[in-house]
Amino acid sequence: MVNIEEKFSDKVKSLEGSAIREMFKLMAKPEIISFAGGSPDSALFPNEELAEIAAEVLKENGPQALQYGITEGYVPLKEWVIDRLKTQGIISDADDTIIVSGGQQGIDLAAKSLLNAGDGVICEQPSFIGGLNCFRSYNAELYGVNVDDDGINTEELEDILKQHSNVKILYTIPTFQNPSGITMSIEKRKKVLELAEKYDFIIFEDNPYGELRFSGEEVPTLKSLDKNDRVVYFGSFSKILSPGMRIGFASAAPKLIQKMVICKQVQDVHTPVITQMMAYEFVTRYSIDEHIKKISKVYGEKCEYMMKLMDEKFPSCVKHTRPQGGLFLFCTMPDGIDSKELLKRAIDKNVAFVPGATTMIDDQKVYSCFRMNYSMASFEQIEKGINILAEVLKEAVGE
Amino acid sequence: MVNIEEKFSDKVKSLEGSAIREMFKLMAKPEIISFAGGSPDSALFPNEELAEIAAEVLKENGPQALQYGITEGYVPLKEWVIDRLKTQGIISDADDTIIVSGGQQGIDLAAKSLLNAGDGVICEQPSFIGGLNCFRSYNAELYGVNVDDDGINTEELEDILKQHSNVKILYTIPTFQNPSGITMSIEKRKKVLELAEKYDFIIFEDNPYGELRFSGEEVPTLKSLDKNDRVVYFGSFSKILSPGMRIGFASAAPKLIQKMVICKQVQDVHTPVITQMMAYEFVTRYSIDEHIKKISKVYGEKCEYMMKLMDEKFPSCVKHTRPQGGLFLFCTMPDGIDSKELLKRAIDKNVAFVPGATTMIDDQKVYSCFRMNYSMASFEQIEKGINILAEVLKEAVGE
Repeated sequence: MVNIEEKFSDKVKSLEGSAIREMFKLMAKPEIISFAGGSPDSALFPNEELAEIAAEVLKENGPQALQYGITEGYVPLKEWVIDRLKTQGIISDADDTIIVSGGQQGIDLAAKSLLNAGDGVICEQPSFIGGLNCFRSYNAELYGVNVDDDGINTEELEDILKQHSNVKILYTIPTFQNPSGITMSIEKRKKVLELAEKYDFIIFEDNPYGELRFSGEEVPTLKSLDKNDRVVYFGSFSKILSPGMRIGFASAAPKLIQKMVICKQVQDVHTPVITQMMAYEFVTRYSIDEHIKKISKVYGEKCEYMMKLMDEKFPSCVKHTRPQGGLFLFCTMPDGIDSKELLKRAIDKNVAFVPGATTMIDDQKVYSCFRMNYSMASFEQIEKGINILAEVLKEAVGE
Repeated sequence: MVNIEEKFSDKVKSLEGSAIREMFKLMAKPEIISFAGGSPDSALFPNEELAEIAAEVLKENGPQALQYGITEGYVPLKEWVIDRLKTQGIISDADDTIIVSGGQQGIDLAAKSLLNAGDGVICEQPSFIGGLNCFRSYNAELYGVNVDDDGINTEELEDILKQHSNVKILYTIPTFQNPSGITMSIEKRKKVLELAEKYDFIIFEDNPYGELRFSGEEVPTLKSLDKNDRVVYFGSFSKILSPGMRIGFASAAPKLIQKMVICKQVQDVHTPVITQMMAYEFVTRYSIDEHIKKISKVYGEKCEYMMKLMDEKFPSCVKHTRPQGGLFLFCTMPDGIDSKELLKRAIDKNVAFVPGATTMIDDQKVYSCFRMNYSMASFEQIEKGINILAEVLKEAVGE
C-alpha cells in the first residue's frame, strides 16, 4: 500500500482537522442547543420564492442554467453586484469584479494569487478560522493583532509592520467581526489605509455581515475609502440570502482579478449557473433590502434577548461585546479559565459554543474567551441555553 | 496606486490567459459553427424533470437546501456515488470519497494536497488544459508523454521516470481521452500501475467521459485494477447530467481525502446543497443509465456522421482518431502546418476548433493537430462546418 502521507505537500502537512472539530461531532446530537454555528436562521430563507424561481428558470432557460458558464460569473448577476457596490460607495466595473463560490473562495483565490510560502499575513486576534486556515494552507506566516472595542489596535499593527518586513496582507473583517461582533471605527479604518500605503501591504476586507446592521450608524467600508487599489473586497450572498447556494463576489485591482479568474478556472471552472440565475432572479423580482431589513430585525431582537439574559444570569466577571449587527458576540471570562474545558462541561449539559482557541493563530494555548452565535437558535432555545450556560459558568469561575 | 503585479505569488506569475483565449473571443460571434467547446448537448438536458425536482426540494426541504452543508458532501448523494462506484468495480466507502464542485475541483484539491513547487507531473501529450493549468498553478514541473492509438506510450513513460526522480503524479484521462478520444488498453493500464509501484508515483485518473461509450467494449478503470491506493479517481456529473450544476466526486486513500476535505473547507466550504439535492433526486427518481444511454447514442451518431464526412471531404493526408465514446476526436495534418494559423482562417469562414497548442505542455511550438468536438453542434451544423473546414484544409495542405 502506498504511503500517501509521505507524499503530502508542505502546504497541507501541518493542516489538521483540529481537536475542536472532534468536539463539534459531539455537538451533532439533536438535543443540543447550539450557539456554535455561524449559520443564518434557516426559518428566514425565502424558499417559496426560490422554489418558484428555480422551476421557472429551469423550464424557460434550462439549456443555459445547466450548461457550462463563464468563469467571471453570470453576467446579469455580476452587473447587479457592480450596481449595488456603487450604491455603497465602491466603484467597481466588470474588470474589477468576479462572482465566486462563496466569499471563502474569494479569499482563497486572492491568497493563492498573492502568497508565497513564508509571506506574512496579519490577522485579527481573534479571527475567522476559514481565513486563518486558508492562509495556513499556502504556508504563510501568520501574525496576530489584537482587536479593541473599536477594531484593530493600530499601534500594535504598526509595531508588527516594523518588525516583519515580509507582511504582504492584512486580513480584516472590519464590520460585525467574526467572532467578536466588533466594528472598526472610521478613524481606525483611515489609519489602516494609511499604514497600508506606508508599509506597502494589501488589505483583505472580508465583509459578509456588513449589511446585517440592527443598530448604530453605518461606517464606510475600507474599500470605499481606498483610492489606490490597496483593498481586496469580499462580499457574499450567504448571510443575506442563502449560504447553501455558495455565491459571493470579490472586487479588486483588475490585474489581480485576472489572476483570480485563472485560478478559479483551474479550481471549479465557474460557480454553478443555476444558483447564480436563481440569486439574480430573486434580487430583481423581490426587494433584497426589504429581506435584509426583515432578517436583521430578527437577529437584532435575538441578540438583544441574549445580551439581556447574559447580563442578568452570567457571573459579573464574564464580559461580552455588544454588536450592532452580524451574527456573533464574544464572551471573555477571567484569565486562566480554559474555554475548551468549559465547552466540554457545557456539551454535557447540551449547550455548545465556539471556544476561543478555534479563532486564534496559536490554537494550542489556553483562552478564556468564546464565541456565541445568536442567529440560529430560537428565543426559547436562547433562554434555555443561556440559563444552562450561566450555571456552567458559575461553577467554572467559582461563584 | 499599488503595483499589484509585483506582489503576485510565484505560483501565478507565469499563468497567463493564453493567446488562444483571445481567439476564443472571436469565436463568440453567433454565426460561428463551433467544434471548439467541450460541452454536452444542451438540448439533451432533463430540464423539465430538474425544474420539478428543484421546486419540490426547495418547497419541502428549503431550510436544508439553502443552509450550509458539510464539506464532504450531501450524504445521500455521496452514498449513491459510493454504491455506483461499487457496480463499476471501485471499492470506496465514506472515508474514501468526497463530493466536489466539478471534477476539476477534485484535481485541484488533490494537486494542492500533494504538490510542492518543482515536483514532477507527467501529463499525456496532448492533454486537458484544465489539468495542465492546475498543475502549473502549483509550480509543478510538467513532463509530456505521447499517446499512441492504445493510450500512453509506456516505454516513453518509463524513460521519463528513469530520467526524473521528482515525478510524484501521472495525470491521465484513460478513457475517451480529452482531446484525443483515445482509450488506453487494459494491457497498458496494468503496465502503468506496475510502473507506479516500481517508481512510487500517484496516478490521477480523470474519468469524466468513461460512461459515454457508444461502441466497443468496456475497459476497467485504473482505479478498479488498483490494489494499493495508487490511484486518485475523479468522476463527474458534468457530462452525464449537467456541467452547469458543477458536481463531481473523487475517490482516494482516506488520508488523502482528509487533506482534500481540509483544502475544500478553505476553498468553497462545500458544494452547493441545492444542486447536490437536485442531482440526488434525479438519479433516484429517474434512471441515469437510461439517460446516459440516450445521450451516448446521440453522441455516437454525431461522431459517426462527422467521421464519415471527414473521410469523404478532408484531404487524405489529414488523419483523425476513431473514438468509441466521449465528446472529442483529434485530427492531425502533415508536419509543419500550424493549426493556430488554420484556426484563424477557419474563423474567417465561421468555423472553430481547438488548436493543438492549447492541449500541449509547451504551447509556444507549432502543432499540426487540432481537437474537434461533436457533441454540441447539430447534424446540419456538422455537415456545413466540415464542408467549410475541408476547403480550408485543402488550401492549407495545398491539395
